Amino acid sequence: MTGAAQDKTEEVREMKKLSKLLITGASGRLGSVCRGRLGHLADNLRLSDCKDLGDAREGEEIVYCGLEDKDAVMELVQGCDGIVHLGGQATEAPWETIRAANIDGIVNLYEAARKSSVTPRIVFASSNHAIGFHEQTERLDANSRTRPDGFYGVSKVFGEAVASMYHDKFGIETASIRIGSCFPEPANHRMLSTWLSYDDLIRLIVRVFAVPRLGCPIIYGASANAASWWDNRETAYLGWQPQDTSEVFRAKLDATMQPPSANDPNAVYQGGTFCSDGIHES
Amino acid sequence: MTGAAQDKTEEVREMKKLSKLLITGASGRLGSVCRGRLGHLADNLRLSDCKDLGDAREGEEIVYCGLEDKDAVMELVQGCDGIVHLGGQATEAPWETIRAANIDGIVNLYEAARKSSVTPRIVFASSNHAIGFHEQTERLDANSRTRPDGFYGVSKVFGEAVASMYHDKFGIETASIRIGSCFPEPANHRMLSTWLSYDDLIRLIVRVFAVPRLGCPIIYGASANAASWWDNRETAYLGWQPQDTSEVFRAKLDATMQPPSANDPNAVYQGGTFCSDGIHES
Amino acid sequence: MTGAAQDKTEEVREMKKLSKLLITGASGRLGSVCRGRLGHLADNLRLSDCKDLGDAREGEEIVYCGLEDKDAVMELVQGCDGIVHLGGQATEAPWETIRAANIDGIVNLYEAARKSSVTPRIVFASSNHAIGFHEQTERLDANSRTRPDGFYGVSKVFGEAVASMYHDKFGIETASIRIGSCFPEPANHRMLSTWLSYDDLIRLIVRVFAVPRLGCPIIYGASANAASWWDNRETAYLGWQPQDTSEVFRAKLDATMQPPSANDPNAVYQGGTFCSDGIHES
Amino acid sequence: MTGAAQDKTEEVREMKKLSKLLITGASGRLGSVCRGRLGHLADNLRLSDCKDLGDAREGEEIVYCGLEDKDAVMELVQGCDGIVHLGGQATEAPWETIRAANIDGIVNLYEAARKSSVTPRIVFASSNHAIGFHEQTERLDANSRTRPDGFYGVSKVFGEAVASMYHDKFGIETASIRIGSCFPEPANHRMLSTWLSYDDLIRLIVRVFAVPRLGCPIIYGASANAASWWDNRETAYLGWQPQDTSEVFRAKLDATMQPPSANDPNAVYQGGTFCSDGIHES
Amino acid sequence: MTGAAQDKTEEVREMKKLSKLLITGASGRLGSVCRGRLGHLADNLRLSDCKDLGDAREGEEIVYCGLEDKDAVMELVQGCDGIVHLGGQATEAPWETIRAANIDGIVNLYEAARKSSVTPRIVFASSNHAIGFHEQTERLDANSRTRPDGFYGVSKVFGEAVASMYHDKFGIETASIRIGSCFPEPANHRMLSTWLSYDDLIRLIVRVFAVPRLGCPIIYGASANAASWWDNRETAYLGWQPQDTSEVFRAKLDATMQPPSANDPNAVYQGGTFCSDGIHES
Amino acid sequence: MTGAAQDKTEEVREMKKLSKLLITGASGRLGSVCRGRLGHLADNLRLSDCKDLGDAREGEEIVYCGLEDKDAVMELVQGCDGIVHLGGQATEAPWETIRAANIDGIVNLYEAARKSSVTPRIVFASSNHAIGFHEQTERLDANSRTRPDGFYGVSKVFGEAVASMYHDKFGIETASIRIGSCFPEPANHRMLSTWLSYDDLIRLIVRVFAVPRLGCPIIYGASANAASWWDNRETAYLGWQPQDTSEVFRAKLDATMQPPSANDPNAVYQGGTFCSDGIHES
Repeated sequence: MTGAAQDKTEEVREMKKLSKLLITGASGRLGSVCRGRLGHLADNLRLSDCKDLGDAREGEEIVYCGLEDKDAVMELVQGCDGIVHLGGQATEAPWETIRAANIDGIVNLYEAARKSSVTPRIVFASSNHAIGFHEQTERLDANSRTRPDGFYGVSKVFGEAVASMYHDKFGIETASIRIGSCFPEPANHRMLSTWLSYDDLIRLIVRVFAVPRLGCPIIYGASANAASWWDNRETAYLGWQPQDTSEVFRAKLDATMQPPSANDPNAVYQGGTFCSDGIHES
Repeated sequence: MTGAAQDKTEEVREMKKLSKLLITGASGRLGSVCRGRLGHLADNLRLSDCKDLGDAREGEEIVYCGLEDKDAVMELVQGCDGIVHLGGQATEAPWETIRAANIDGIVNLYEAARKSSVTPRIVFASSNHAIGFHEQTERLDANSRTRPDGFYGVSKVFGEAVASMYHDKFGIETASIRIGSCFPEPANHRMLSTWLSYDDLIRLIVRVFAVPRLGCPIIYGASANAASWWDNRETAYLGWQPQDTSEVFRAKLDATMQPPSANDPNAVYQGGTFCSDGIHES
Repeated sequence: MTGAAQDKTEEVREMKKLSKLLITGASGRLGSVCRGRLGHLADNLRLSDCKDLGDAREGEEIVYCGLEDKDAVMELVQGCDGIVHLGGQATEAPWETIRAANIDGIVNLYEAARKSSVTPRIVFASSNHAIGFHEQTERLDANSRTRPDGFYGVSKVFGEAVASMYHDKFGIETASIRIGSCFPEPANHRMLSTWLSYDDLIRLIVRVFAVPRLGCPIIYGASANAASWWDNRETAYLGWQPQDTSEVFRAKLDATMQPPSANDPNAVYQGGTFCSDGIHES
Repeated sequence: MTGAAQDKTEEVREMKKLSKLLITGASGRLGSVCRGRLGHLADNLRLSDCKDLGDAREGEEIVYCGLEDKDAVMELVQGCDGIVHLGGQATEAPWETIRAANIDGIVNLYEAARKSSVTPRIVFASSNHAIGFHEQTERLDANSRTRPDGFYGVSKVFGEAVASMYHDKFGIETASIRIGSCFPEPANHRMLSTWLSYDDLIRLIVRVFAVPRLGCPIIYGASANAASWWDNRETAYLGWQPQDTSEVFRAKLDATMQPPSANDPNAVYQGGTFCSDGIHES
Repeated sequence: MTGAAQDKTEEVREMKKLSKLLITGASGRLGSVCRGRLGHLADNLRLSDCKDLGDAREGEEIVYCGLEDKDAVMELVQGCDGIVHLGGQATEAPWETIRAANIDGIVNLYEAARKSSVTPRIVFASSNHAIGFHEQTERLDANSRTRPDGFYGVSKVFGEAVASMYHDKFGIETASIRIGSCFPEPANHRMLSTWLSYDDLIRLIVRVFAVPRLGCPIIYGASANAASWWDNRETAYLGWQPQDTSEVFRAKLDATMQPPSANDPNAVYQGGTFCSDGIHES
Repeated sequence: MTGAAQDKTEEVREMKKLSKLLITGASGRLGSVCRGRLGHLADNLRLSDCKDLGDAREGEEIVYCGLEDKDAVMELVQGCDGIVHLGGQATEAPWETIRAANIDGIVNLYEAARKSSVTPRIVFASSNHAIGFHEQTERLDANSRTRPDGFYGVSKVFGEAVASMYHDKFGIETASIRIGSCFPEPANHRMLSTWLSYDDLIRLIVRVFAVPRLGCPIIYGASANAASWWDNRETAYLGWQPQDTSEVFRAKLDATMQPPSANDPNAVYQGGTFCSDGIHES
């Protein structure tokens, strides 16, 4: 069989490329990174947001769309075989805001995926705030129980549950990435543990679309940081190996600010100050 | 110390009684059972529903209220030190129905609990449909991951996440009971494993309000059935020991209907036919 | 739905009965017990052995057949929708004996099951000697690793592996029962932990054929003995609850014989003296 | 083999009886119970304490001895093939008191056991205070980590470590019983979970001396109480099945005293008020 | 002690070398690799196969021998203190072929090892097909249960069971290596996860013979591939750290062939197409 | 928030430095290493031992003090906000020696810490001999049960228990490091698995004092050796990543001495010859 497989090398083929990759929330920080660096994954990028997306470049298609608009989302998703779902509310907010963007928005997205002519593979930008109330001295893996630290975190638990249901019921595959802190560099000592470099994020998304069978994994989105709370061994099958480490920023951080004291929420909880914040009133 | 404690027996005191126990969904099947049998837990029962609740009996107070009405729920919860939350949508339904009753409804309830002058202890009627896609040959406990089998199941995962967050953030204690099939008797062979007798439900609720410290447990709501998928050992501290068993109905069931075939969803999945049902269109 | 189900009671049906149940090794001790007490499970019993089976009673069919005879086994299994496989070598023996009866015999049985016009559900009489080298101070469940204590034990690991493969590949369901010591009463102190009453064995087999979906479970075949090494919680879904206990024989045993000393294989290993025995030379 | 074993019944023998059973701390509450009810286990009881032990009854031998006296303990243990070690300091105390009785005392006891002409089997009265800082909402088993709640608890962790070392190094077998609350009846609501009846204690000790191979188990000493934190499944091989339950005292307790509030150490920690107590100054 | 150990450095000794290392299946692909690269482990290599082995080189001894020939195997093994057992049937085949080579063959080998004048340490070439029916989204370690994907896989479970029994009963140490895909390079996308380089295989065998105490470990034989299903942490004591990775071949593979689709057995099961193949008829 | 944090960079601050770091056992081998290399962690080093400490260098303070002297230890600890506790008996010894240095000594240290005007963070030099009776084929992590191999090992279990109690009760944070073999290089083959380089020890201590919240972790003190028994994943949050490996010494060791035979305690037990040694008589 090995021999036979090797005989086929004369007929050179390209790795499977997506036809149309939708990026929601494309005007945001991570959206812009993905827009700039995921073009090679698909014949076309469809970019969506309700904020300004500038001009469409070659191979791009721009659709303005609010996620809470069911019919618009139906049209948005139609024909996409890949989705990187970064859209929605990206931090704590009053309930009404969270519900529109992250509750209704997610349901609209998956209903559209179910009814689309092609079944997309989905990257869902979940968050460490789905497990934020675990203490920093605890080690988590994909089987750890959720402990959301606010409405935002609750909405991410909701999104992961929707993804699980559409996978079990309709075979739609989703990678839920519990993103730590995806910035150019860590902005405080807690982020030395949660930091995810843009490069590692991009590498992860590339793997999600390259692996023949995705399933419905939960992945902690952090670089190969020295001080770590999260163990991705349950998803080693994806072949994602983060290459960056926050350690290169430690000296600079130490020179810039005091580390939090031992009882500061930024030292106690994985979700940091989200855990000590109250409810955002609408 | 033992001696000292025993010396106090001359001064006879009553076990701690609730002041006002709210039962939501009080006109429903389980609501009626609770209305009839939980009166001894509290000085007053406050009964709520949007359907007819008949006349208030002695010690009862009746409030008509839709759970999606934030202000009405705020008033409903005010002053209650116990809540048995049976209200909301109790089976699969179109998304809009689920969202109003089980998503907004839950947020309204917990926000009201947070703002109330007394902090209530809450029983949340969760459901086996939060874990419905696990196969019947699997054994689950409180740490098993959720696998909801529809919008209804997803809304129960959401409710448990809200309860977890309000416990971690504000100390509100909730018992989430993943109710199996709470009927006078099992209606099919799958229910031989999921059946929860009314008596065992009442015993469980009594324990939830009796235990000095509740925490935020997840409990599988099934009687002591012979064929069982669920293991409540993580919550043995509650002291709930179900007394009934579905086995007494097996012969009658066998005489009444064929057991499902091996590939029937009622034989494959813990959630039964919810798993094979499609999405309820609105 | 409950109501609807109950309305069907006028049309009384019988529980699903097997058409033809094959019992191999039917002349042996357990075979005789099953012959006498499993008749109600099937329209017909097909009894097989290479030793004398006496006269066929009503509803019985007798087939003399060596398990190492591939063609004969093919014919034997044909048309049976249930098999209780007690045949083969039932204790340690030289390799050639074990191989013919328990290695070739098992392969012949499953190949026949695969090729039969109906797919049978199978009870496989595995043995505690598949895990015999675990110490008596260890607690095992269905996930514990195998530690066979001789060729006999190795052949049982083999049989369980064959059952697993035919389940994964062809959907044939098998209950592998790791039988402890199935006798009228325990014959020594070790058997106080391993004893399985005939009644509990029969109850287990009845459950195996009654459960709508069997899967491919591994079950420890022991009664509800006080001193126990084995935990069947992974297979609680079967609804088997042993009713007997070896404790009723303890006083008699104590009066009859000394318990083993602490370093006696009967006190050290779950497999008892099988662990200290050498290889049986052929 | 079964047949052979049964043929031996004409030669009736007695169950193995100890020659000399030492009970330390024999003048204390549990010591008195054991003195009165363990006589049948041995030809002779050797009773030891530094407080008054009254007159020796038939089959009894009385030795006054402080556990911190190495030579006296050597003599005390000499010739005993069983020890129930209840001696030492039985509640929190200043360090010097704990050290003499529970640190030096334990070392003296095991050194004497090692040097004795017969190797005794030992029951070590450990305590729930070895794990007292676990919360009451946690379920523990024999593998849970220790969390002592004071010097007394630390001394029990020490004793269990000594027992483990002498077992691994010299083969001396010890049953460490983490006694909950061994009183005639529970004296407060926490004890509804920790209560161990005298009868269940005696049954456990009898099993420890009856089992052919003991090993070095850790057993939670609590009756079959409804509300339970402790899971003894790892030591099911001992065959100890507690028969009593604290539930029969609940109504009386409820009538006698208020349950603790949710933040009372008696409601939060398994060790109760030991956890909130400070260090006992010497 | 450290000082004393260091004082001995004047007396330079060689690391312990095997006297005679038997390689079975020495004419095969892996056999040839081992023949060429393991010579330094032993004073002599004894090479065995039933196919042509060419001329014996210096330090080599050639023995033609079928594994199913009990007496010949007895002679073959005699005097060897190391065995690398690569012989037998190396892929799926009809039952009769598997049985002769991999069932009888293994029993003959271990019986010969038991009766030999020196007790050999053994490397057993087990296979990923012993666990082939696990899905590729699952992470396995040495404690995962076996799920063989055909007669070949079943024979490997059998071999591991025989190794376990001879270790427990007679102290013969075996390293069972569940070889993934040991080729010069991966031949398809599944092999990006299962690939084992020749260099890493040799490193592993060297460690097996170097470690002072081997025990009876199960090791997954895969290089340090990026996308991995197998976790060797239970056998970190061996000190084997694979150095190669299949990642260097990914681009070439992607250029050569399409990855399998999501429902292709090569994307679903760890055993790949072995899982979808039927039984090989004899 | 990120932006805000970055704006603070104009105000450059130093990383939090200790005021006074106490090193006990400062004249010993590890004490000397720490004395020479931890000066940068604190404004002042207070060095303590009962053996000669030479002259105080700049920034050093020398205090002669026996750990068994309660009042002296009280004074010694006063005012220190960091302690590296290397003092006490560092290998097996008669009980009286162990008790004075490692039992009383530890209690004195923690009582002094509790009563000090500042609460110190503590590094406790525990030992692999706390778990020495585990076999070398077992993998341990922070949750594995203790199996001490002598009085020395028992005293380390005691010290860890004291640390746990003072953390739970008074919030004093301790890092218990189960040091393997901390020498310039491994002195025998067992130490290839247990070796901890001086550099890695220093890196670990630096991390213990740098991490904002320490908790009360148990860390295995071994370098990144190829052959390893210990898994520090539970304490990955500390950010300690050992950089050295014993592998660089293997060839030299192999040339110097024979590896132990398979039944040598140095090959069987993690604690090596401590396990086969008897009790040290006083």
